[in-house]
Amino acid sequence: MSKKENNRLAEFRKERENANEKILDLDNLGIKRFFNLDTNTYKEGALPVETKELLGLVASTVLRCNDCIDYHLEQCAKAGSTKEELVEALNVALVVGGSIVIPHLRHAVETLEILEEEEILDS
Amino acid sequence: MSKKENNRLAEFRKERENANEKILDLDNLGIKRFFNLDTNTYKEGALPVETKELLGLVASTVLRCNDCIDYHLEQCAKAGSTKEELVEALNVALVVGGSIVIPHLRHAVETLEILEEEEILDS
Amino acid sequence: MSKKENNRLAEFRKERENANEKILDLDNLGIKRFFNLDTNTYKEGALPVETKELLGLVASTVLRCNDCIDYHLEQCAKAGSTKEELVEALNVALVVGGSIVIPHLRHAVETLEILEEEEILDS
Amino acid sequence: MSKKENNRLAEFRKERENANEKILDLDNLGIKRFFNLDTNTYKEGALPVETKELLGLVASTVLRCNDCIDYHLEQCAKAGSTKEELVEALNVALVVGGSIVIPHLRHAVETLEILEEEEILDS
Amino acid sequence: MSKKENNRLAEFRKERENANEKILDLDNLGIKRFFNLDTNTYKEGALPVETKELLGLVASTVLRCNDCIDYHLEQCAKAGSTKEELVEALNVALVVGGSIVIPHLRHAVETLEILEEEEILDS
Amino acid sequence: MSKKENNRLAEFRKERENANEKILDLDNLGIKRFFNLDTNTYKEGALPVETKELLGLVASTVLRCNDCIDYHLEQCAKAGSTKEELVEALNVALVVGGSIVIPHLRHAVETLEILEEEEILDS
Repeated sequence: MSKKENNRLAEFRKERENANEKILDLDNLGIKRFFNLDTNTYKEGALPVETKELLGLVASTVLRCNDCIDYHLEQCAKAGSTKEELVEALNVALVVGGSIVIPHLRHAVETLEILEEEEILDS
Repeated sequence: MSKKENNRLAEFRKERENANEKILDLDNLGIKRFFNLDTNTYKEGALPVETKELLGLVASTVLRCNDCIDYHLEQCAKAGSTKEELVEALNVALVVGGSIVIPHLRHAVETLEILEEEEILDS
Repeated sequence: MSKKENNRLAEFRKERENANEKILDLDNLGIKRFFNLDTNTYKEGALPVETKELLGLVASTVLRCNDCIDYHLEQCAKAGSTKEELVEALNVALVVGGSIVIPHLRHAVETLEILEEEEILDS
Repeated sequence: MSKKENNRLAEFRKERENANEKILDLDNLGIKRFFNLDTNTYKEGALPVETKELLGLVASTVLRCNDCIDYHLEQCAKAGSTKEELVEALNVALVVGGSIVIPHLRHAVETLEILEEEEILDS
Repeated sequence: MSKKENNRLAEFRKERENANEKILDLDNLGIKRFFNLDTNTYKEGALPVETKELLGLVASTVLRCNDCIDYHLEQCAKAGSTKEELVEALNVALVVGGSIVIPHLRHAVETLEILEEEEILDS
Repeated sequence: MSKKENNRLAEFRKERENANEKILDLDNLGIKRFFNLDTNTYKEGALPVETKELLGLVASTVLRCNDCIDYHLEQCAKAGSTKEELVEALNVALVVGGSIVIPHLRHAVETLEILEEEEILDS
């Protein structure tokens, strides 16, 4: 993979963090509470974090949002999902969402490569 | 729950089966292969059936399809998910998909009740 | 309008309330907080309630959810919007969302009639 | 097919016409112009009516609107498409839109049956 | 904000205008009429321009289109909406549309910054 | 058109092919079968390839996926559709999908230009 590709995810993480800070600085209580709620949704409950992150990944994929896919792929890997499991989850999303999902699958497979290079995901 | 409500799921199962048969009778090879592929997607692989069905449930919920929600809720229950786990999965779908998902949550909670009455799901 | 049509909205209100109670009885903290957040979103702030409900109506219409359209049409009428204003908001939704929105416009126009009969909306 | 099923399409046609009249009676110029534009879109141009109606059918199916599917299936049949052609178009929609389209395919296949009984579509 | 970011909106305006001209040069009457209809939709009627542009903004946000968000944010600011009002409208969109809207909120907050620097929006 | 614009499509083709290979290298049977099914969907059947590709184009446009639009525009041109026919198909998509489709129409019209320069599409 080219250096440029590898940097794609690093840049996304930085921009995401910066923009999220700007959003919270807007000082809108409703938005702040939503962000808080969103964070809590993926904490361990009756379902383990690993499963919840897979659910977030598949929801993001059928709704076709590359930023959300990247975020959840990384959280899934950190929660312990293997590459094979992630690919199976993406397969579910592909079948439910159809061929319109394929461009996002192309994005996801390159993110998986970066996560392997960064040793966040086992090859 | 009223008798009428209780019959809703039974009627859906019958109509679904009848209409699926009509679809396969159309004798379109592409559609037949899609149905086959769809069935295989939820078979055990790197991920257990239970997790895959939860993925199907959340995908169906954020895409807001009541028939798909009913189908996957039943499959989830049969694969061993508890009510508490199903509700947590629906919570993930609600947060990802927003308040537009709420009418489908209303539908889902009534399906959960029917599945409990039918003893497919533990109360 | 037939009696049956007129009862459609009354029945929706009752079923909505019942099912919402069942959802809150699930005792899932994330879902409860979401419902709370949702309610607060439409309270007066920098924007008046009337405008916020119009925003909710248009969002519901382009996302094509009849239950959400019915709910927001009633809230809009109660917040003081006239029929002409509601129709203009629906026109914005139609242009943004396209002809796929038309079946929901058909639903909305019948809800407007019921709200007029119930004297919630001025004729 | 049961009598009840057979009446489903007849009832839809009547309700659709009634509600469309109510919409035009709203006297909103933007909405009237949109309806006019919509009608003109499917008139013969560089593409024949038959192809344009197939495009409308597939767009309606991937966007998952049963009323729009019923309307375009009938227009397609009247414009000369055969059942086999309609099923192939639905197959394209299924593959692009994924398994979430299947409930609408179930709806479509029953509409095809009614159109055959009504001799609008050749068996 | 970096110069690059600041230029993002300027470049979008130019590209948007160029491409819109190319579309109108296609000489397709249906498309021309749609563009005309679209422009007229946001003119003052029963609802003031300011409200209509907020409706366009929220519709664009729940449908998750960054270009449309940028366009309507600018029109909203020009029609007199304050930053606080725009953020409240975005909050409605976030709650209706869910966390999948967040990446577009990140985009919107940076557009707001640019509009402030350009003094189109009051800080 | 600038050289840069012209290269956009060439780069997309290369990246698409590379990423598709990576997807097939994942060795997930479900995904492989889906790709196979997808390819077969657009082969001649009761409907000619030309019509099927137009269906793929309109489905891609109402679902608002630029990569899919580019792919199908090229396949349509190769299957024999004229520019005027493609623009009419895009007009159907615009009316069904609404003004939210316009940014994708802007993308499509530039792809049409590139295809003309490459002499894949007759001017």
